[in-house]
Amino acid sequence: MTGTGTDPAPGTDPGGPDELPVRDELRGKSPYGAPQLDVPVRLNTNENPYPLPEPLVARIAERVADAARSLNRYPDRDAVELRTGLAEYLTRTTGHPVGRAQVWAANGSNEVLQQLLQAFGGPGRTALGFEPSYSMHALIARGTGTGWLSGPRRDDFTIDTDAAVRAVTEHRPHVVFVCSPNNPTGTAVDADTVLALYEAAQAARADSGGALVVVDEAYGEFSHGASLLPLIEGRSRLVLSRTMSKAFGAAGLRLGYLAAAPAVVDAVQLVRLPYHLSAVTQATALAALEFTDTLLGYVEQLKAERDRLVAELRAAGCEVTDSDANFVQFGRFTDAHAFWRRLLDEGVLVRDNGVPGWLRVSAGTPAENDAFLDAVRKLMKENAA
Amino acid sequence: MTGTGTDPAPGTDPGGPDELPVRDELRGKSPYGAPQLDVPVRLNTNENPYPLPEPLVARIAERVADAARSLNRYPDRDAVELRTGLAEYLTRTTGHPVGRAQVWAANGSNEVLQQLLQAFGGPGRTALGFEPSYSMHALIARGTGTGWLSGPRRDDFTIDTDAAVRAVTEHRPHVVFVCSPNNPTGTAVDADTVLALYEAAQAARADSGGALVVVDEAYGEFSHGASLLPLIEGRSRLVLSRTMSKAFGAAGLRLGYLAAAPAVVDAVQLVRLPYHLSAVTQATALAALEFTDTLLGYVEQLKAERDRLVAELRAAGCEVTDSDANFVQFGRFTDAHAFWRRLLDEGVLVRDNGVPGWLRVSAGTPAENDAFLDAVRKLMKENAA
Repeated sequence: MTGTGTDPAPGTDPGGPDELPVRDELRGKSPYGAPQLDVPVRLNTNENPYPLPEPLVARIAERVADAARSLNRYPDRDAVELRTGLAEYLTRTTGHPVGRAQVWAANGSNEVLQQLLQAFGGPGRTALGFEPSYSMHALIARGTGTGWLSGPRRDDFTIDTDAAVRAVTEHRPHVVFVCSPNNPTGTAVDADTVLALYEAAQAARADSGGALVVVDEAYGEFSHGASLLPLIEGRSRLVLSRTMSKAFGAAGLRLGYLAAAPAVVDAVQLVRLPYHLSAVTQATALAALEFTDTLLGYVEQLKAERDRLVAELRAAGCEVTDSDANFVQFGRFTDAHAFWRRLLDEGVLVRDNGVPGWLRVSAGTPAENDAFLDAVRKLMKENAA
Repeated sequence: MTGTGTDPAPGTDPGGPDELPVRDELRGKSPYGAPQLDVPVRLNTNENPYPLPEPLVARIAERVADAARSLNRYPDRDAVELRTGLAEYLTRTTGHPVGRAQVWAANGSNEVLQQLLQAFGGPGRTALGFEPSYSMHALIARGTGTGWLSGPRRDDFTIDTDAAVRAVTEHRPHVVFVCSPNNPTGTAVDADTVLALYEAAQAARADSGGALVVVDEAYGEFSHGASLLPLIEGRSRLVLSRTMSKAFGAAGLRLGYLAAAPAVVDAVQLVRLPYHLSAVTQATALAALEFTDTLLGYVEQLKAERDRLVAELRAAGCEVTDSDANFVQFGRFTDAHAFWRRLLDEGVLVRDNGVPGWLRVSAGTPAENDAFLDAVRKLMKENAA
C-alpha cells in the first residue's frame, strides 16, 4: 500500500467490490433487477406489450431532433413545459385540477422516490411500507441512509387499516409508503385507508412537523377505481407518484413524476442533481403526451386482458389476488420457484418476487396471455394428476 | 393535525419547504444552479458554443426512432453498447487500453459521483476536496450524508502536494476528489500529485481497505497535457470521471461516465437505481460517439479561443489563472461581483463562483469572445481612469 502507489498486485483485478472500501451494508449484495432471459413470452417486468404507434415514433424523432439542435446547452433545469403537460394530463384524467407548481419529474419514479427520501428521510430517519410491496421502496431507503420499517398486511395482501395505523403510531416513521395498486400483489388501496394513515402519521410526528405519506400510483391508470390524486388537496404532506413506464408504454424512457403541494416540489429541488432530466428525455415525454388518447386506448385493452387473466387463472384452479394493475398475482404453490421454473421450461417468463407461494404475471398481448394460460393449465393438470 | 386529516388551513399553500418536515440541514437552503438570464452573450456555464452538426442531429433522430420502437421495454440496464463505445473512445484518445467492464455511465457525471459516494462515502464517512473546486462535489457529499472536508490550495490555486498529503494523512477521508483541470480555476493537476495523494489516502486508511480517489476530468479533453487515465492501471481505488457535456457539446444530454477497475463498476451497480439510463439517452450518446472526430475538431477551436482569451485578458491588465479547460478564471477585482454586474450591463454573462476577487468566463465562439473582451477592455480602462 506504499512505495509505488499501486495495489499490492499491480494490474490484477482485485476480484470484486468486497475487495474495495465499499460501505459495510453493501458487502456481499447483488444488484437489483429481474433476471433478463431470452424466452419467447416475457411477462416478468410489467412492461406494456404494445410498442408505441409509428406516428408517435415519428413525432419523437422530430421533437428530439429539435432538442438536439441545442443539445450543447444545458436542458431546462425546471422542466417547465413537461411539468405543465403532466399537470394537464393529471387534471384531465382525474378531474382534479393540478398545476405545474404541484408537479415534479425525474428519471423514473425511482429517482422521484430517491429525491423524496433525500429531502424527507435520510440518516437518523425512518420510512415504513406495508410488505410485500414494491421492493425498491426499501432499497432506495437503504441507498439514502433511511431506516426501513416493515408494516403488516392481511393474509389476502390488503391493508388492515387498524393494524396499519397502530404500526404508524408505534414506529413514528418520517415517511410512509402506500403502493396503490400494490406491486406485486395487485390490489388498490381505498381512500379511507390512506386518509387514516395520513392522519395517524401526522399525529405521531405532530411535535416535529408531521410525516410525508407517499402514494405510489405507478399502476394507477389500470385501476378499477378512481385515482387517489384528489387527496393531495389541503394535505401538504401527501405525495402521489406516477410513471410513464406502464400506462404510456414507455419503460425505456425512464420518466417518473409526482403531484403534491408546491412546497414538496420546492423541497425536492433542494436535493435534485442540477439538470437531472435530459433534453432528449423531456422532448420524448412531451411527444408521448401528445398521444395520450391512443396510449390510454392500449390501457383499456390491457385492463380487459388483465381481467381475463384473473378469470382464467381462477378457472384453472389457481388462487388469484384481486388486481387493479397490469399484472396478476397467482398461487398458491407449495414451491412457487419450482412452478416459475416449469413455466420457464414452457417458454414463459413470469416473476418470482419472493412472496412465498405466489408468482406474478404481467398482462401481455392476447397471444402472449394465451401462451401463458395454456402453460398454466397444463402444469396445473400435471399437479393434480 | 387530527380530525379531518387535512392541514390546519385546508387548501392553502403552506408557503415553502421549511413548513414541511424536510431535513434540518436543508432548511433555508436554495436549489443549486447558475442564474439563467436572457442576455446576448452567455459565457457562464462552460457550455460548448457550437451546436451539434446537422448530420449528427439527423443520426440522433434515426437512432432515437429505432430506440422508440421498443420504448415499451425497459432499457439495457447495463448499457453494454454505450459502455463499449465509451471504452473505445477513451482507448483511442488516451492511448491507454480500457475495456467495457472498466466503464460505467449515468445521467451526467453528477449522478456518477453520487453513485460513487453512495457506495464508498455516505453516513459516518467523509470526502475531501481541494477548494475552490467544482462545488457539486461538496453538495453531492451533503446529499448522500457524507461528511465534507475542505483541503488547501496555494494562492495561485494549484495544489501544494505536501500540504495536500498532510491534509489527507490528518483527516483520513474515505473519498478524495481531485478536479483536473480544476473548475472554476482552470489548471490541470499533474500525475505526480495524484499519485502522492493516492498513496497517502491508501496509507491513511490502510486498516480499513484504503480510500477512493476520484479524478474529475470533466474538462479533460481541453487540457494542454495528457489525460490522467493511465493512472487507473493497477490502482483499483482510483476512478476517473468524464462527461459528454463539454467536449461532445452535449450538456443537454446528461451523459457522464467513469473509468476504473471493474470492481468499482461492480460496486456502483449495487447502489445505482435500476434502469437509470434511458434508452433515448443511450441512443443519443451512441450517435454522438459516431461523430467523435468532428466534435473533437470543435474542441481544438475552443482550445485556441481559450488560449486567446488568456493572452488578451492579460494584455488588458487582468490576472489570469493558467487554463487547461474551456473556461478562464480572471481577476483580481476588489469587488468581483460588481465587475460581474458591470459585464452583465454590457450584455455579457459570466460566472461569479464566489472565489473572492475572481470571475470565470467560458470560451465561446470567436464573436462571443470578442464581445466579452471588448467589454472587459472598456471596463478595465474605466477602472484605471
